[in-house]
Amino acid sequence: MQEFDQHNLTKAVIARLADTPDVRTKEIMTSLVQHLHDFAREVRLTEAEWKRGIDYLTATGQMCDDKRQEFILLSDVLGLSMLTVAMNHEKPDGCTESTVFGPFHVEGAPHYEHGADLANGAKGEPCVVYGRVTGVDGRPIADAVVETWQADADGHYDVQYEGLEVAQGRGVLKSGDDGRFHFRTIVAQAYPIPDDGPVGELLRATGRHPWRPAHLHFMIKAPGYETLVTHVFRRGDRYLDSDAVFGVRKSLIGDWVRLTDGTYRLDFDFVLNPAR
Amino acid sequence: MQEFDQHNLTKAVIARLADTPDVRTKEIMTSLVQHLHDFAREVRLTEAEWKRGIDYLTATGQMCDDKRQEFILLSDVLGLSMLTVAMNHEKPDGCTESTVFGPFHVEGAPHYEHGADLANGAKGEPCVVYGRVTGVDGRPIADAVVETWQADADGHYDVQYEGLEVAQGRGVLKSGDDGRFHFRTIVAQAYPIPDDGPVGELLRATGRHPWRPAHLHFMIKAPGYETLVTHVFRRGDRYLDSDAVFGVRKSLIGDWVRLTDGTYRLDFDFVLNPAR
Repeated sequence: MQEFDQHNLTKAVIARLADTPDVRTKEIMTSLVQHLHDFAREVRLTEAEWKRGIDYLTATGQMCDDKRQEFILLSDVLGLSMLTVAMNHEKPDGCTESTVFGPFHVEGAPHYEHGADLANGAKGEPCVVYGRVTGVDGRPIADAVVETWQADADGHYDVQYEGLEVAQGRGVLKSGDDGRFHFRTIVAQAYPIPDDGPVGELLRATGRHPWRPAHLHFMIKAPGYETLVTHVFRRGDRYLDSDAVFGVRKSLIGDWVRLTDGTYRLDFDFVLNPAR
Repeated sequence: MQEFDQHNLTKAVIARLADTPDVRTKEIMTSLVQHLHDFAREVRLTEAEWKRGIDYLTATGQMCDDKRQEFILLSDVLGLSMLTVAMNHEKPDGCTESTVFGPFHVEGAPHYEHGADLANGAKGEPCVVYGRVTGVDGRPIADAVVETWQADADGHYDVQYEGLEVAQGRGVLKSGDDGRFHFRTIVAQAYPIPDDGPVGELLRATGRHPWRPAHLHFMIKAPGYETLVTHVFRRGDRYLDSDAVFGVRKSLIGDWVRLTDGTYRLDFDFVLNPAR
């Protein structure tokens, strides 16, 4: 019979995974156990701290419902979401970079024609967005499905308003034969991620703010290409250097230019990576 | 502005902890982020696997209620609970070793006189338990508070029976002037940990069984000594080598000796460590 102590226990737990039928599950669980134990040993976790961790994870799970995913939010603020995105979307130079998906995408957003107003009543300063979808060779991609969503002037997405029945600040368009599309909407604003739960508690305990810099979400799909999930961030936003979820990439910063009539205009081109 | 990729992101997340007011929180969170990211990079976590992990943790949190703590169970089967116990209770030779607390302890168990029957109607083969509480010098510790709890012949603790109003197989005694105590109860049996939730799913996915070898829980408190939380395991149990929660230590195996009248007797002595 084997005798366990804090030094050999990890090996014993990993040995217990020997009969895992799926090779990938075994690989993931082995690495998980090793790092979990290394973490506990490294900080010399006390029993009270262990209990605090159990309570924290429990509260995080219990905060989740059909409108709120606190574990995704936790993954976001710990940089795990962005790390996973970065690892899985390494692309050739010239392709538009990916960033975090975020929790506010909704299936079944309404379809619009070019030039339509996607704001659909959302509060904010009017703006127009012009985009173009191309391959890395610069050739236009026609009929790409371009989905966009954003927060309003108060930093809220439509789904955060109780009882709002219509989509606001979100919609789907198709690129034309020249790869171009354009639509009207409102200027996105910076907003704090929901911080009334365990994630907010963690941010406060670590002296961090909950703000994300203003951004416009895009998901662009075209046959033969890797789906692009990204944001365009607004140049000049005070939180570009401290996005609570680490989503900002320099190449994704765009200019909302103020026009003479007081409205704004964003031009941004999207370069898709061929599917692997 | 800093540009994040999968290699430098970890450093950026850790840098974001710079203003953490509590030194210990900062230490723990820094190590946690490092190991979490190292894990994700090491296995090259895909987005689908990340999502599976989010869903798993969410389901684990939502399985918890006032009678079920699925995150403790998860910690148990990953060996984290036993690792934490082992790290925090390194003791001089001769002291009784600690093991996991487990989820079935209940506050306010009834107090009994020596010789009483703690089974209190629980199903099982009758036995008598004789114990002695001493210091490492062998001197008896009088008036130690000895709490014990156990599963019945069907592998269930009293709290697992819906609607059972009385304590069965659990109670509190005091050691005498000679450090001794004894009580009647039933023989503990092996049992499976609750495996109808996410933890059971993990055990099945990794080809592991949910069984714990038969054991009798003890928590012993005496002024001036470190509280001892431990089990006595039953020699010969088929699961001694594969306890689902890694709690077995050789020094904690005891002999339930069959007497001529068909009942059993366990003798086990407990050596307390002076409080630090």
